[in-house]
Amino acid sequence: MNENDSTLFQQIRDELFVAAVGDVLDTMGYHHQFLPAGIAPLERSMRIVGRAMPVLEADVINDGRKSAGPLSGKPFGLMLEALDDLRPGEIYIATGASLRYALWGGLMSTRAQRLKAAGAILDGYVRDANEIEHLGFTVFCRGTYAQDQGVRGQVIDYRCTIEIDGVRIAPGDLLFGDREGVLVIPREVEAEAVQKALEKVRTENKVADAIRNGMGACEAFRTFGVM
Amino acid sequence: MNENDSTLFQQIRDELFVAAVGDVLDTMGYHHQFLPAGIAPLERSMRIVGRAMPVLEADVINDGRKSAGPLSGKPFGLMLEALDDLRPGEIYIATGASLRYALWGGLMSTRAQRLKAAGAILDGYVRDANEIEHLGFTVFCRGTYAQDQGVRGQVIDYRCTIEIDGVRIAPGDLLFGDREGVLVIPREVEAEAVQKALEKVRTENKVADAIRNGMGACEAFRTFGVM
Amino acid sequence: MNENDSTLFQQIRDELFVAAVGDVLDTMGYHHQFLPAGIAPLERSMRIVGRAMPVLEADVINDGRKSAGPLSGKPFGLMLEALDDLRPGEIYIATGASLRYALWGGLMSTRAQRLKAAGAILDGYVRDANEIEHLGFTVFCRGTYAQDQGVRGQVIDYRCTIEIDGVRIAPGDLLFGDREGVLVIPREVEAEAVQKALEKVRTENKVADAIRNGMGACEAFRTFGVM
Repeated sequence: MNENDSTLFQQIRDELFVAAVGDVLDTMGYHHQFLPAGIAPLERSMRIVGRAMPVLEADVINDGRKSAGPLSGKPFGLMLEALDDLRPGEIYIATGASLRYALWGGLMSTRAQRLKAAGAILDGYVRDANEIEHLGFTVFCRGTYAQDQGVRGQVIDYRCTIEIDGVRIAPGDLLFGDREGVLVIPREVEAEAVQKALEKVRTENKVADAIRNGMGACEAFRTFGVM
Repeated sequence: MNENDSTLFQQIRDELFVAAVGDVLDTMGYHHQFLPAGIAPLERSMRIVGRAMPVLEADVINDGRKSAGPLSGKPFGLMLEALDDLRPGEIYIATGASLRYALWGGLMSTRAQRLKAAGAILDGYVRDANEIEHLGFTVFCRGTYAQDQGVRGQVIDYRCTIEIDGVRIAPGDLLFGDREGVLVIPREVEAEAVQKALEKVRTENKVADAIRNGMGACEAFRTFGVM
Repeated sequence: MNENDSTLFQQIRDELFVAAVGDVLDTMGYHHQFLPAGIAPLERSMRIVGRAMPVLEADVINDGRKSAGPLSGKPFGLMLEALDDLRPGEIYIATGASLRYALWGGLMSTRAQRLKAAGAILDGYVRDANEIEHLGFTVFCRGTYAQDQGVRGQVIDYRCTIEIDGVRIAPGDLLFGDREGVLVIPREVEAEAVQKALEKVRTENKVADAIRNGMGACEAFRTFGVM
């Protein structure tokens, strides 16, 4: 991870929350940056900041028979290769599978943590949740479910561009998540978005003070322009 | 809030739970009074009692262009007016929006708390959950999601009759919720329903004692008429 | 409960988790043994082990009118009979109802606990969750919702074979659940599955050690054959 990213991630983690950055992206014309609400942190207090390492899954029934495709019969497809390829500050973010099996687990978390990855975001389930919580590895997912991927799915590509519910995620995109959702922050505006979000947070504190002191919501909006 | 309501709300809060009142409404022939199960308290222990101040939302894409409607270009539509209009003991209850953005947040909670509202019930998401929990304001919702309403939706009416999943809510209807659901208690039978629910709770305690002492479920039902 | 079952249940509870047994069933060719992910413990830490006592529900509108069927007008149908029939180590497992009302509650838990049942698994909602948690009775379900079954549904059969999402459950089948799902373990292979799962857990601990010490995921899979 380069020094610029270290500083940027730290600033986001210390001073921002997802709502503020989302609002700023809205005003800048970026209206489709939130992953679906069903993708939530394994533990409520988890926050995630890092660069996307996108992973593409597919439902591939492995019944032991050989078929024509290049990954036929390879357990988990390219999942282990994708995992070993994680770099410091990156987030393993996977989609493409149906909601029937786990895309991530305890041993994967142990490996990713060793590689200094920033976390994992799964458009699907995870397993070994107790172990992951014990490790303190950051995972966002659609819930916990132990059914294994082995005979049901494969990773078919990685470091590729993916889409989750129409939101596009390219390798290296900045991701930021908390208990209120995960944002994909487009690379070309990330510095501007973070700067404007920091300013917005300061304004909102002033509005909160005014409202606590009795100012009406209509008046607050006229005065401060946010609500 | 008038004195009758103060007393009524206190009694419900102290002595009743939603299941008991729902059962009594069933026996009185009111079978469609529960809001959908997906609407739950932000924190498991939250309970809500108050009178409905219904709010109607709509998905309105605000891309900066002027259109023909009376609320075109007005940020949040009538949301701030609805909020400022809350009276002591009232509950802001909103429906009509798709599940893509938050209908309620931290600043709104601060304002509503100042106005002595009893809480908010959203057929949709809320944001600023940490702030709301810190305020101790009571909110029921379909979950937490920070995507903003600004460019996606508007409040188009309030103090109007609304329906959530076929359950009708008129201004002033008594609402009662806990972690097992939210009930709309029709005004014409609210006194009777509360009275009968208090009696039912007492009977159920007797049944529980009998079963703990070894009475069978079939016998208990024959003896006490409830189970 | 016979002695063999006591020993078996204790060993599962002490040494296994659902993921390990599911993996082993996969390798043995049993690929459809998990109940849907939406069925989860009332409290995250709850684990369940026991033999299925299957119960079949149906949506039956009880408006007080007599109809032709044998259970017409009988409150809850055969629910109380099914409940009183529970034997030590058995699990009340019910399906068939729509997601509109509770299939289980506090008084039922009190009765089942007295009968030394191992728990309840509901393909639907439960009510009286506070009371159930206070009792310490183990319940898996799709959530909490107080709307009553009385006028909406009936138990129409029990000790019958049922299916939940295509997974078949026969009377006496071994059930094992934790926060990552519920497994139906076919009777003919239950001893073998438990034995193999115990071995798998030991291997996984070795893999975890190797990965913590820096071994790559690809190499670990080549070395140990699991990941």
